[in-house]
Amino acid sequence: MVDYVRDLQNRICLALEKSDGRARFESKSWQRDGGGGGESRILEGGKVFEKAGVNVSVVHGQLPAMIQKKFGSSSTEFFATGLSLVLHPVSPMVPTVHANYRYFEQPDRAWFGGGADLTPYVWSEEDFRHFHRVHKEACDRNSLELYPRYKAECDKYFWNEHRGEARGIGGIFFDYLSEDLDKTFHFVRSCGDAFVESYVPIVERSKNKTHTDRQKKFQLLRRGRYVEFNLVYDRGTLFGLQTKGNIESILMSLPPVVNFDYCADMETNEEEKTLTACFRQPRSWL
Amino acid sequence: MVDYVRDLQNRICLALEKSDGRARFESKSWQRDGGGGGESRILEGGKVFEKAGVNVSVVHGQLPAMIQKKFGSSSTEFFATGLSLVLHPVSPMVPTVHANYRYFEQPDRAWFGGGADLTPYVWSEEDFRHFHRVHKEACDRNSLELYPRYKAECDKYFWNEHRGEARGIGGIFFDYLSEDLDKTFHFVRSCGDAFVESYVPIVERSKNKTHTDRQKKFQLLRRGRYVEFNLVYDRGTLFGLQTKGNIESILMSLPPVVNFDYCADMETNEEEKTLTACFRQPRSWL
Repeated sequence: MVDYVRDLQNRICLALEKSDGRARFESKSWQRDGGGGGESRILEGGKVFEKAGVNVSVVHGQLPAMIQKKFGSSSTEFFATGLSLVLHPVSPMVPTVHANYRYFEQPDRAWFGGGADLTPYVWSEEDFRHFHRVHKEACDRNSLELYPRYKAECDKYFWNEHRGEARGIGGIFFDYLSEDLDKTFHFVRSCGDAFVESYVPIVERSKNKTHTDRQKKFQLLRRGRYVEFNLVYDRGTLFGLQTKGNIESILMSLPPVVNFDYCADMETNEEEKTLTACFRQPRSWL
Repeated sequence: MVDYVRDLQNRICLALEKSDGRARFESKSWQRDGGGGGESRILEGGKVFEKAGVNVSVVHGQLPAMIQKKFGSSSTEFFATGLSLVLHPVSPMVPTVHANYRYFEQPDRAWFGGGADLTPYVWSEEDFRHFHRVHKEACDRNSLELYPRYKAECDKYFWNEHRGEARGIGGIFFDYLSEDLDKTFHFVRSCGDAFVESYVPIVERSKNKTHTDRQKKFQLLRRGRYVEFNLVYDRGTLFGLQTKGNIESILMSLPPVVNFDYCADMETNEEEKTLTACFRQPRSWL
């Protein structure tokens, strides 16, 4: 998995640089006090991407007792590796995307987790369907049961309980896949390999579109909900903070500029209403 | 306590409107599904205050099992009332402030909690000392032991563990004060009554000062740390989200515009270095 995520990081960064057309990823290696480290690739101030991070981590050591208890393992020893990316485009016409594929190992068991989800700021059914279709195809190559299951898991996971709404229009999400690790690794690679195809065509279609001030404002407000989800609920973020991971890599997921208004109206027009309805009531895209 | 916090809300809002000189607080009452409600007073787009909320809540009902367990009570019934305010000024020259005074009651016990803390973006020892001095005097009127104890509690509470730094330069903080409720209520009123005197003179001294672009940027980045604290650690926020409180009143505390940069340099000059050192290593101000 370590070789795979490193190669995937290279492939994804190349594709994104090509799509951005101006900025380059900067690489920053970091060491973790408790063992291991990682490599963050960050692009800021791009033509398309305002803040993009594609990180690889390969860490090991001892789990905090609280997390060990939650995992139900007899040991605190762990090894974990994965790729995690969050891309925040400048334009509200281009959706934010997140993907993460990871492998976790303890002396008594090992499992894979991961997924990808899209957070759009304007309505574009073609793009939403494309993102889901590409991930469905990646799942289908392994088993036809996977997409429906992990699509539903994704809707459940990326849920801002206090808002009663999803973070975006979903994708796929799975965790604790500990059976038949070879087969599962194959599945994880299918998903990871599908990322560029699932997202870059959407960027290409939307990156040169013009937008209104209100569309920009809506993006800044929706980014606030993104922050709420990541800091209040996201397991990966909380795990990272609790295990003293690399703070900057963990919080790289937060959008660069965010608005938090009091009682913000998120349904000022038909487009916002349609989009908000999809966040409140996740639907099928295929 | 209900009458007290309502009166205090009026007094504070009047003082802040006078200091702002342009905007007015708008009142918004809300009901809580599980019982009770509250009144939010919000001022946005002021001359001095970009986003200010002074809220009163009077709620009752049943606690979620998780919180009951934490409180160690034999009952899920609760009644709670309090005033909570967060003021985010436009200018980085004017510090952000938070204060909260609350009373909590269950069938088998009752307690008070509260405090006030200052989050500055520029160095102003005179102001930091003033804020602490006024709160010390309020504490001292009740017992000389209180300020040192609650100043230390405040430094401990408003702590971003993952950053290894405080949210600001502290103030006072106390919780679960369940002994001698009459005397404690008197103490809480001393603190609440001191709020205007602790903060408004600082606003008056700083509100017309000019600032640099970098000072504004530093404010936007420090506001990011404010968001991190409130969403990851703040008991009041998490309690509110878990008990299905009024979301907009709870998250009113989040700053209106925030920046999250990757590996932001928070020590680009001597002033930032001095301020950051105080966040990392809380010190005595008196």
